[in-house]
Order: sequence, then C-alpha cells, then structure tokens
Amino acid sequence: MVISDTYALIDAIFRPRSIAVVGASANAETAGFDYLQALRGAGFKGQVYPVNPKGGEILGLPVYPSLREVPAQVDYVISCIPNAGVLEVVSAAAERGAKALQLFTGRFSETGRPEAIDLEQRLLAEARQTGLRIIGPNCMGLVHPGMGISFRPDMDTQAGPIGFLSQSGNLLFELNHFGGARGVHFSKAISYGNALDLNESDFLDYFAEDAETKVIGAYIEGVKDGHRFLQALRHAASRKPVIVLKGGRTTAGGRTAASHTAALAGASEVWEAAVSQAGALSVGTVEALMDLLIGLAYMRAGSGSRLAMVGAGGGRSVLTADLCEELGLHVPPLPDDVERKIAEKAPDLAGWVTNPVDQSILAGSGVGGTRVLEWLDESPAIDLLVANIGEPWAFGRPDSEGIIGHLTERFIAFAAKTRKPFAAVMAPSDYPDERRWRIVSEAR
Amino acid sequence: MVISDTYALIDAIFRPRSIAVVGASANAETAGFDYLQALRGAGFKGQVYPVNPKGGEILGLPVYPSLREVPAQVDYVISCIPNAGVLEVVSAAAERGAKALQLFTGRFSETGRPEAIDLEQRLLAEARQTGLRIIGPNCMGLVHPGMGISFRPDMDTQAGPIGFLSQSGNLLFELNHFGGARGVHFSKAISYGNALDLNESDFLDYFAEDAETKVIGAYIEGVKDGHRFLQALRHAASRKPVIVLKGGRTTAGGRTAASHTAALAGASEVWEAAVSQAGALSVGTVEALMDLLIGLAYMRAGSGSRLAMVGAGGGRSVLTADLCEELGLHVPPLPDDVERKIAEKAPDLAGWVTNPVDQSILAGSGVGGTRVLEWLDESPAIDLLVANIGEPWAFGRPDSEGIIGHLTERFIAFAAKTRKPFAAVMAPSDYPDERRWRIVSEAR
Repeated sequence: MVISDTYALIDAIFRPRSIAVVGASANAETAGFDYLQALRGAGFKGQVYPVNPKGGEILGLPVYPSLREVPAQVDYVISCIPNAGVLEVVSAAAERGAKALQLFTGRFSETGRPEAIDLEQRLLAEARQTGLRIIGPNCMGLVHPGMGISFRPDMDTQAGPIGFLSQSGNLLFELNHFGGARGVHFSKAISYGNALDLNESDFLDYFAEDAETKVIGAYIEGVKDGHRFLQALRHAASRKPVIVLKGGRTTAGGRTAASHTAALAGASEVWEAAVSQAGALSVGTVEALMDLLIGLAYMRAGSGSRLAMVGAGGGRSVLTADLCEELGLHVPPLPDDVERKIAEKAPDLAGWVTNPVDQSILAGSGVGGTRVLEWLDESPAIDLLVANIGEPWAFGRPDSEGIIGHLTERFIAFAAKTRKPFAAVMAPSDYPDERRWRIVSEAR
Repeated sequence: MVISDTYALIDAIFRPRSIAVVGASANAETAGFDYLQALRGAGFKGQVYPVNPKGGEILGLPVYPSLREVPAQVDYVISCIPNAGVLEVVSAAAERGAKALQLFTGRFSETGRPEAIDLEQRLLAEARQTGLRIIGPNCMGLVHPGMGISFRPDMDTQAGPIGFLSQSGNLLFELNHFGGARGVHFSKAISYGNALDLNESDFLDYFAEDAETKVIGAYIEGVKDGHRFLQALRHAASRKPVIVLKGGRTTAGGRTAASHTAALAGASEVWEAAVSQAGALSVGTVEALMDLLIGLAYMRAGSGSRLAMVGAGGGRSVLTADLCEELGLHVPPLPDDVERKIAEKAPDLAGWVTNPVDQSILAGSGVGGTRVLEWLDESPAIDLLVANIGEPWAFGRPDSEGIIGHLTERFIAFAAKTRKPFAAVMAPSDYPDERRWRIVSEAR
C-alpha cells in the first residue's frame, strides 16, 4: 500500500459518522460506559449505537441487542466484550459496513497463552477476509478533538498541534492528564495496543501527511517490521519533528512490555542509533517527552545554539549554565554589545554580571531583567532566549500577585515581538496552599 | 581546630540568645526588613535589635542608631549595609561580644574588582584580630526552625531531619519553597556565600555531629581547601548519608559561579570521582537532590536492590522497569511464592502478570494491588517495594476522592507495617482545576 492510501484509510477512520459500542454498559465502573460517556462529553456529533443483549437505554440512547440489529450504516465499532465473542463482532461489523473495529477487548497474545495467541490470529484472518481493519486489540483507540472523539470521559479534548501514537492507552491518557495545562493538546491521537493489523508504521505515515499535526510523538514498545518502521520514521521526520519514547529498553522492561502488548522489544543501543539516523529524537522519560513536545509545538524554530538567560537567582543561574552546556548548548559570556549597554546604565555592574544574568546582581541597579532580555534579543551573538519568571522570589514580595502577573504579561508581549526562539520558565503550580497554587495557575 | 571545637563553635552560632540586624529598615522591599520579619514569623524567642542611624521603631522594636549603642550582649550580628561600612561593624560586633557576623552585604570578591577583593581581605584580617567569626559575605545566613531563626519571611520553618549547607541562599530557599510540601524540612541550614572564614568543611563537620540532622545535603560551587574538604566529606559520609549538588561543572557554569560567589570551580570528572570515593552521593539537578533528600530522610534503609512495584498501568510499568534497571536496580520477574498465591486466587493471571505488576491486568480479577503488595512484602526474593497511587486513573472513577483517600490510608498503614524500604508514588498536585489540586494536596 502506498502512503497516500494509508493516509486516506486512516483519515476516514478518524472521521466516522457513526460509532457502535459493543458491550455497552450502564455500570459507570466499566469501559462499556466510559466510551459512551466520553463521546458525549467530547461532543461527538454523529450517531452512537450502544450494543448489549440486555437492551434498554444508556445515557438516553436506545441499546441494540446485537450489532447486526443496528438499523443503519456503522462506520466504526468499539468492542468491550470478552474475547470469546470477537470473531462474531468482526463479521457483524463488516456486514454493517464498518471501516474499522477497535478492540478494548484484551487477553490475546499479551497473556502468552497458546489459545489466546491462536484466537488473535483467527481474529486477524477473519478481518482480512472481510476487509475490516483492526485497531488493537488490547487498546483504548482514537482521540480526535475536532470530531468530538475521546476514549475516557475525563480527557481534556482541546485540539492542538500534537499527533500522538501510543502502544499504551494509559500513557497516552497520562500525557494529556499531566500535560494538558502546559499545552499537550492533540490534533489526533491513537492508542493501538497489540498492533495486530494497523500498526506504528501506518500511524506514522498518517501523521506525516496530516495537516492538523505539527509535531509527532510516539510511545512504542516493539515494532512489527523494523525495515518498514525505519522507512516510515525517516519519512515522517523529514516532514515534521518526531519524538519517540521507547518502552522495553531493558530486560525487565522488555518482559513487562511482552505481558502488556505482546511487543518484542529490541536492544536499546540499536534502537537509539536507528531513531537518530532516521532524523527523529529519542527520549527516555515521559517528562522529557512532554518537554520536547511542548517546546517543538510552541517555540519558534531557530538554528543556533548560543543561549542567554535572565531572571533566575545565583545558584539557579550557575546550574542552568551547567545543564545547558552538558546538553550541548552554548552559554557564552555576555556579548560585548550587551555589556556596553549595561555599563552605560549601571557602571557598577560592568565586567561583573555575566550570562546567565543573575537577577540578584541586577537588584537595585536600575537595569531590569526584561531590559537586559531586550538587549540580548538585539545582539547578533545570541540565538536562544530564556526568561525565568522567578515566582519563588516574587512570593516573598508584598505584591506578589501583581509582580507575577506583570512579568507574565511582559514576557507574553516579548514572545510576540522577538524572532528568536524564546522560552519563559515557570515552575509547576504544585503548592500546598491555595493562594500560591491559584496565582501560578492563572499566570500560566 | 579539631572537630569537636568546630562543633561547639557552630552549635553556639546556631543558638544565639540575641540578634542585631545592622541596616534594619521599615521598607518591606529590603533585606533589612525581611530579616526582622522572618525572625518574628519563625518565632525567635531571644532579643532582636534593629540598628539604623535613623532610629525610630520597626515592627514595634526600638531601633538603635549604632551597634555600639545596643545596651546588652549581642550574640549574633546580621549586616545588611553597603560594604563600605563593614569594617566598623566587625569591631562593634566584637565589642558587643558577638560570636559571629553574617553578611548579607555583598559586592566583594564576586565582582572581580581589585578594590572589592582587597576590602574582603581586610574584613577577614579585622575579624581574625578580634576573634569574631564570619559567615559569608554575600549570603543569607542561618535557618534553625528549633530556635525560630529564618532569613526570609515566607520560608516554611517546620523542623525536619535534613541539615543543609548551601553556597547559594536562593537555592536553599527554593529547596524549601518547592520541597516543603514533600517533606524537605531542615534541622538546621546555612547559606554561606563567599565562604571567607567559616566554610563548607566547617559546616560538614558540624552536621556530621549534629544529633538533629539525619541526612546532609550540600550545594557547593567551589571549595576553599580540597584536601580538608575531602576529609570532612569522608567523615560526614561515614556518619550519615551526604548528597552533594555541584554548581559550576562546566566552563559557563564556572564563570557564572565566579560572579556569584567568587568560587573557583574545578573539573567535573575529578569532582565526581572524589565525592564518590568519599562515600557521598553526587547529583546534577535540584530535582535529583530533592528526591534523594526525601528518600534518605524518610525511607527505611535496606540493603538489596531487587525492586517490585504495583499500581501503575501498562506503559508506566514498562518505563519504570526500564528506568530502575538503567539506574542499577534490579526488577526481577514475580517471585515463585507470589506467583503461586496469585494463581490460587486468580488462575487466569498465572504466568501472565509480571513485575512491575500492571494494575490494568489485575482489574476485575478479584486480586487487588494492595494484596499483591502484601505478598511481595512476604517474599524473600524482593528487597524494595514501590506502590503507585495511580490518581490519574482514579480521577476517571465516580468516587475518585474516596478511592484516593482510601488507597493513601492503606499505603500509610502498610508503610508502618513493612520492614522493607517502601515508597508510595503520587504525581505533583500541579492541576489547573481546584478539585483535583485539593484532592491530591490532601492525600499527600
């Protein structure tokens, strides 16, 4: 299949007009309820057909006793029933005209049991025969804010520039759960579990072409076809930034990945080399993944590595210089042109203040951090700018709320004006008291 | 000076009966106000003497026009005046019988200017002549919750098991600011800036002996005497865990450290080797420093490295296994005895569930994560236990507050019972909405 076919197929899957939930339930502790509630909460505009032999009504929707009895075309089917019934769902879904079947249903090859592995193979064979495509099994499925599609009622479904493919549904959910407030919003995302049919390479191909996706992120435990994967990765990375978090890098992680998604994890060094040769970025933790997704989705692109920072205290400035240099950036001394401007306004600081600019040295000098930031912006010797809001310091001042609000607004205005990559740094709103939590949350 | 003399000297400095603040001010934007407000807020029971030629009253305390006019013994003097006046403060402090002078006053050798370096040397010579000891200059000074001593009004002064020496006052403050809610509480702490007289080795010697200190942390930009420092570090590390964060590991960091505290930073590799040979732990970031301080201060000590975890979803379990193995811990498969107990209660899971125990596999099996945790506790094949509270998952359930509260209580009860090192993991309360922020804050 050539790329444009994959694109058209997956794009159609992401835009169903009707969705059936097989194994729908009125019990709020089950996935069969969660999917219905999630589609309602995210504002899905198409038809939703709950299916359960018990019939009745769930969330005001009539329940059909079987998928075959749904009196209309069904574009997309979600299965939440035990695995014994999935072969019947495949043929019924094909009969209803569905393009794809997503299986929340698990206990297939990930259990390691011969009969479960065999059932998974029969599932694939049955799907191939009917032309129905499979997502999963053992996965959470689609997220598409633009269509009102989500797999959990409590997901943040604000649309954003990040396309994400994840072998773990929980990891995808946690990215959104913890990163939402910082801007981790999805164009589209998919949890694809055991990758029995549609797999990581197909989704990479899709996101490479998808106009709504500016940055691609992936959590992968194992790949189905190494050669095809590297091709897809290289192609995607030639179009947009791609960041990959690999699960199962060690023996223990690989064993856990096998019991999670039946993935065959490979040697970590080979993986690292292959990903970086393909032009993608490899990360080792969810935190690094989140930072890079946010940085690449929202920061202006730049080419140089000479970084300047203002706004932090002494110790923090020293440690930032160390970390940046250790990560391969350069933190040069203050450029001559900036040095001259400082010396003019505050002769006392000449030859003393350096880069990173220690805010405590500036205190009382008449030269503020935002002024120095503007001079650094004008200097041709600096490529990247970082400003620290310094809220721990501000909280010690009488009008802390005013200071933090004012600085935040100045940095937002500066970000709109500068043509260099610029990041304003603020710590998490992780405070035990409500006042500081609220001030930081609002500034953010 | 032998160690016990250093101990007695510094212990006396940490327990002043009276404190004078030279350069006291009614202006809430100045350090001369902050120190007075901080001592009041922290509940200092001794005498406080504000000194300022303007006289009058600040925070209800009479202001003395000069230190010499304070009509009583002054144990400890804090200087907030410009550096031109410090020599006079030394002789006045000595006359009042002070043991130590702490200089918030800066602009000495850290400016790199010959006249400032010269003034710093005269300050030291004058102090030596009178027997007065110097803390700083260019520092924030003492924190001693047990005596009601703090250097900033907004510091959390709950007493705890951590003794901390920091070349940066701001870093010491930020540790407390961000770590307070997680348990970063000080027995005593000191910000010592340029380390002109009393230095890092003296404070290490002190904390090694101090009965209130269970774990020692240090932020160091440069050391005064490498040989003496390694001796002090080795001695301290033989008594209690010592964690060192080094600032100025790179050229850029070293340049910044010089302008911050006039520290001469050394080569990073030599430092790493020396610290680890001394038996101390070296970290590269504030986050790692905080995690280790908390772990060593509150976790039960253990000797093995075989770790088991329960409570996280699939992706998180895989990544945890990877990270633990990469950090040198071992994450073995489920021990046979635990495997047998699981097989008895839930035959479906036998041979499938592994370690880390994926919570989503347990779901609906009748075997809960806390039950498996107890079996792991009984198993001789596991040394360390981790339980994930899993609040992102719990927030999706109807009674999330109840679930999180209940799990938290069960883990607290478990922690009291188990004899293995045990950590319960919960993410930061960094939520944009008040409800989730409050539930996590309370559980914590």
